[in-house]
Amino acid sequence: MAPTIPREQMAALFQPRSVAFIGASESSGFFRISWDLVERFGARARTHLINPRTANVFGQPAYERCVDVPGGVDCAYIMVHRGMVAQAVEDAAAAGARSAVVLSAGYAETGPEGARAQDALVAQCREAGITLLGPNMLGFANVAAGVAAGALPGIQPRRGQVALVSQSGAGAGSLTRFAATHGIALSFAVTTGNEAMVTAEDVLDYLIDDDDTRAIAVFAETLRQPALFREVARRAAAARRALVILKVGSSDLSARTALAHTGALVGDDAVIDAVFRQDAVLRVDHLEELLHTANLAAATGPWRSPGVGVVSLSGGACDVVADRAEEVGLPLPALSARTEQDLAAVVSDLGHVQNPLDVTGAGMSDLSLLPRAAEIVASDPRVGFVAVIGGRPTPAPMPAIAKALQSAGAPGAYVATVDSALDEETAQVLAECELLYLPSIRDAMTAMARVSWWGRRLTELDHQSADASGDLTASSSDPTASSGDLTATTRTVVAGSPLSEAEVRDLLRSAGVPVVPADFVSTRAQAVEAAVRFGVPVALKAVSRDLAHKSDVGGVRLDLRDATQVGEAYDAIFDGIAVAAPAAHVDGILVSPMRTGGIELIVGVTHHPGWGHVLAVGLGGVLVEVIRDTVLLPLPAGDDEIRRALHSLRAAPLLRGTRGRPPVDLPSLVTAIRAIADLATALGDSIDTLEINPLLVGRDVVEALDGLLTWRGGSGSPRS
Amino acid sequence: MAPTIPREQMAALFQPRSVAFIGASESSGFFRISWDLVERFGARARTHLINPRTANVFGQPAYERCVDVPGGVDCAYIMVHRGMVAQAVEDAAAAGARSAVVLSAGYAETGPEGARAQDALVAQCREAGITLLGPNMLGFANVAAGVAAGALPGIQPRRGQVALVSQSGAGAGSLTRFAATHGIALSFAVTTGNEAMVTAEDVLDYLIDDDDTRAIAVFAETLRQPALFREVARRAAAARRALVILKVGSSDLSARTALAHTGALVGDDAVIDAVFRQDAVLRVDHLEELLHTANLAAATGPWRSPGVGVVSLSGGACDVVADRAEEVGLPLPALSARTEQDLAAVVSDLGHVQNPLDVTGAGMSDLSLLPRAAEIVASDPRVGFVAVIGGRPTPAPMPAIAKALQSAGAPGAYVATVDSALDEETAQVLAECELLYLPSIRDAMTAMARVSWWGRRLTELDHQSADASGDLTASSSDPTASSGDLTATTRTVVAGSPLSEAEVRDLLRSAGVPVVPADFVSTRAQAVEAAVRFGVPVALKAVSRDLAHKSDVGGVRLDLRDATQVGEAYDAIFDGIAVAAPAAHVDGILVSPMRTGGIELIVGVTHHPGWGHVLAVGLGGVLVEVIRDTVLLPLPAGDDEIRRALHSLRAAPLLRGTRGRPPVDLPSLVTAIRAIADLATALGDSIDTLEINPLLVGRDVVEALDGLLTWRGGSGSPRS
Repeated sequence: MAPTIPREQMAALFQPRSVAFIGASESSGFFRISWDLVERFGARARTHLINPRTANVFGQPAYERCVDVPGGVDCAYIMVHRGMVAQAVEDAAAAGARSAVVLSAGYAETGPEGARAQDALVAQCREAGITLLGPNMLGFANVAAGVAAGALPGIQPRRGQVALVSQSGAGAGSLTRFAATHGIALSFAVTTGNEAMVTAEDVLDYLIDDDDTRAIAVFAETLRQPALFREVARRAAAARRALVILKVGSSDLSARTALAHTGALVGDDAVIDAVFRQDAVLRVDHLEELLHTANLAAATGPWRSPGVGVVSLSGGACDVVADRAEEVGLPLPALSARTEQDLAAVVSDLGHVQNPLDVTGAGMSDLSLLPRAAEIVASDPRVGFVAVIGGRPTPAPMPAIAKALQSAGAPGAYVATVDSALDEETAQVLAECELLYLPSIRDAMTAMARVSWWGRRLTELDHQSADASGDLTASSSDPTASSGDLTATTRTVVAGSPLSEAEVRDLLRSAGVPVVPADFVSTRAQAVEAAVRFGVPVALKAVSRDLAHKSDVGGVRLDLRDATQVGEAYDAIFDGIAVAAPAAHVDGILVSPMRTGGIELIVGVTHHPGWGHVLAVGLGGVLVEVIRDTVLLPLPAGDDEIRRALHSLRAAPLLRGTRGRPPVDLPSLVTAIRAIADLATALGDSIDTLEINPLLVGRDVVEALDGLLTWRGGSGSPRS
Repeated sequence: MAPTIPREQMAALFQPRSVAFIGASESSGFFRISWDLVERFGARARTHLINPRTANVFGQPAYERCVDVPGGVDCAYIMVHRGMVAQAVEDAAAAGARSAVVLSAGYAETGPEGARAQDALVAQCREAGITLLGPNMLGFANVAAGVAAGALPGIQPRRGQVALVSQSGAGAGSLTRFAATHGIALSFAVTTGNEAMVTAEDVLDYLIDDDDTRAIAVFAETLRQPALFREVARRAAAARRALVILKVGSSDLSARTALAHTGALVGDDAVIDAVFRQDAVLRVDHLEELLHTANLAAATGPWRSPGVGVVSLSGGACDVVADRAEEVGLPLPALSARTEQDLAAVVSDLGHVQNPLDVTGAGMSDLSLLPRAAEIVASDPRVGFVAVIGGRPTPAPMPAIAKALQSAGAPGAYVATVDSALDEETAQVLAECELLYLPSIRDAMTAMARVSWWGRRLTELDHQSADASGDLTASSSDPTASSGDLTATTRTVVAGSPLSEAEVRDLLRSAGVPVVPADFVSTRAQAVEAAVRFGVPVALKAVSRDLAHKSDVGGVRLDLRDATQVGEAYDAIFDGIAVAAPAAHVDGILVSPMRTGGIELIVGVTHHPGWGHVLAVGLGGVLVEVIRDTVLLPLPAGDDEIRRALHSLRAAPLLRGTRGRPPVDLPSLVTAIRAIADLATALGDSIDTLEINPLLVGRDVVEALDGLLTWRGGSGSPRS
């Protein structure tokens, strides 16, 4: 899949030979921040100021127009009022510009009129062969190339390994400043604003190939190119570059109309979350976590093992770590016998040898204690990373800690107990001895948990790509991989036509999904006969294409225990529907045996316009919406992924067997889920949801008790 | 209930007339920090240095012993090695000391030998009439009284409203420094260390009466005096003082042996959590949150309404707030029509009028925009607090924001987008214009959510104390309130003697708990007869005092559908137990009708050694341990509290009726739960657990399907 913007163009945008600052003025706050960056980067020589009303800005000559600049301009950095942007672009194009970075606001973010102006701007740039970044953003700074066209405060010229990509301008400004005060060096920072031409995905696609960048921190509100995003994510995983994202806006987007239960479970944000999980993208919840996590991942890459070892001067700090570890997903392995033995020699007088390890306040008088303990813990093969927790960071203890970690097998960091900005002297010492700093227990824990997960997930992906069944290179909306034998099955289905439960039952059965036996009957006597044959208790359900929520209109009668009850229920269904939904046509009645015992799951597949088919599996029956113990899996997904999804449910112990209950037939369950997933994929992009709820599973049973198929736009199964 | 230490003694400890620093030495880091504090407080005059080896420390004269100090000493602040502490105490006592603050380590925290030394220290102090703080801690600083005997760095002499109480010394040091860099002024700080005599609860009891202190931040590992803690919490609630706690150590304490399901649900930490919730104690998860939450609560007290209004310069910031609000429990009410109308006049060109409100980057050029919007939002009656989110805090915008908030009805704060320490100039301006500062979206959200909850909970408690049924002043382990008519019932039960399920059924029934009908039978024919009378399907259960996990040995047969199945099951139960548990005596068989439909709850009461009887209610049946949708309620608790507990379950929609299902009979459910709670309380302190699982509830049924009673120490119902 090719990015929308060719890579040469992206390279030209972010590595311009020269930049013209159009609208350079001492009174503009944006210009002042931008100029400060130019001076820090020592980039005056290739920066030209354009201002028709003055000859000089901050001592630098200003030109009236771009065409006046000797040698022309390569990138036009436009800070003028919206009404003057078109003229500025025209002038820049005449001066040879290949790119425009447009800060100016007042475009699509303000409404329809602004959107039209934005379209015109894009057309003008296309015409002139100009790559457009923005509008309505704060530009970029390429630290490695020493070039900046951005109003991003605080960026240091020291070349780092973390790139920052933000759709929000104000957010980016807070983040670049935060990086500066917390010792996080950036390789690159860019805001993409309205993304009229260049999207965040285009930028990511470019940055994945940037040698200076080991991790990319993304603050995103909308992912406009899902397919490109996934391709980038897979390239990042293969190259061991970390993609760390704070994706916001979930509260606005969540509520898709919930015709089927699956719809309520598969909100846009839940799908994105599942995609991130599948593609080893590290998702964070807060701005601070974004930079700390990226910084950690950039510094260490994936670890040799997922466990974290902790050594600390304070028992209170150890308690906080131990208490919060499970909820943030931080693995704190027990130390090996060898490690415990070695540690005992160092700290035996002080307390218990364990992970997290408290060397107590004694470590404040004996500065060798913490490094010695850290070195031993770092040598434990179960430990992939070591956190050395102390007080406010000061220069004195750092070199010894750095040396201890470097001589042992695992990387590590100095962690301040509470959030502490770095002073310059300490920052300098940390940089010199190459010791990573994480500024609070809280942020360190989140960052370590994410990077630990990332490493585990990369390992899973490695195994998967070696396994033919989990072909992740196929596009998620391409059904060809699985549709071969389903063609005949699905040929009978006309997209958009409603299906009754009886028809969905047939469809499932022909796709290889086991379905509870049922007799379709049209008289009271037939119903009683069927009940006798199955054995009581039985369930009766109305068959109608006009009723999707049958139970709401009395179309379902459960637990009927003798002939009288069955006969009365038969009549009652017709009577009830005649009153509650007089327009509905009832074809007849399905009689099924009641099932007891077993576990009720929901298995649903929905087609998401951006991300393709998504499988939802979880605890079903009446609990589905209140408990929401469900996991989503973008399709296609291998059997391994399905198995992992089942094991990640809170209800997984029920599947594995617990408290005297036998385990369920997991292989048959996975086969049935795969059959459902393949059927839904074969049905194509026009389905909204194929949902089995409940799918009953037990020791020797996997059986769909109810099935529902709805089409996009709700044309399929109108709900009463 | 009286505190262990009389209040006069606590006052003497924390407001000493003079302090002797025993072990004052320029080479001691602890002394240097302590002396720095004395100098900041201007407290040299009443501070005396004791050092037998030098006549002068930092220019201050040093005495050889306390008895040499003219006028004697009131408080002995002891920093010497453990071996010299006894001599120091003796000397101080001779000089008239009423209290000793002992930093020295090497006591109970190190093991049995240290514990003996600690006991001797306590005995010596008792003998001498000395109140002992510590040992193994960092002392205290009473900012209001201008007196310090503590090695707590960074405390400012500016008198604040937040008191800090920490069992951890190192933790306290990080926290006092953090307070200083984040504009949080303290009224008091104390560490309690090993709590050999004075506990955290004693300190809280003292601080609740301190006029300077509006909120207390507690970092605690162990609560040694549960009853006093609860009394203090209730006094705090009545006085609208906030008690904010970071309680750690949950990971160590959690695993009580899980004989009954309830045992697994009622870990020490879960009980403490329930107590905190009941007593309006604000619990936080991280060190930073501790101080920010206390600072906010101290500044505002409880709000007039729970909703938070947010105005921001950045859409990205608004998205983060909206996305995270639900998970942290922050109510963001929709604005009133009047407010929306007023706001539209100010921001209509910029975007959508909503809460959170984005005034966009336009607020950076027009500095009046943010204050104007904040004032309108603060005037909305649904808003109890306003967060004004901007970039790094600088002096310029603060006075206008402060003025806007003060002229409107609700308090508010300036919130920096990301964690930002305050520079001195800005701190000064904020203090002058009395504007509260919260240093990041993340921390502001947690703090606001907690304080909002606190206000709601205080209102609930007000209503409750007006309601006779929820008598919270009764001791939680005093059963007299409810045991009147239960005396006869419980008289038949001998504490510690095992009860069979049949006996538990009788006990429940006589206490007024509805129980599923059952016939006790002793022959196969009787079993079939009973099945016919109840109607199939039925369940058969072995009755035996020797079998608590009957199902594990084949003692339970469910879903028997005809006479043959019932007969075979009857025989199979005896055969199965004879093989699996040959020693068990089976009294007979209970035959009950199978119930279908309805919701299975678990209702359990356990007696906790520290906190008394605790009720657990939640989703029961096989799901209880995997889903853990349970809420705990310390007893006694009013019907209101029980009802609120039910509504706080994730499964609450099932109880209220959802998706065509009828609501359950909630009044009868509450009555049944109350009966179970009263029965368990009447059974006294020697029960471990009384558990009903499942308690079946439906539209017109509340019925215990199974019951279990175990005694403390496991003597009651041995499990197979």
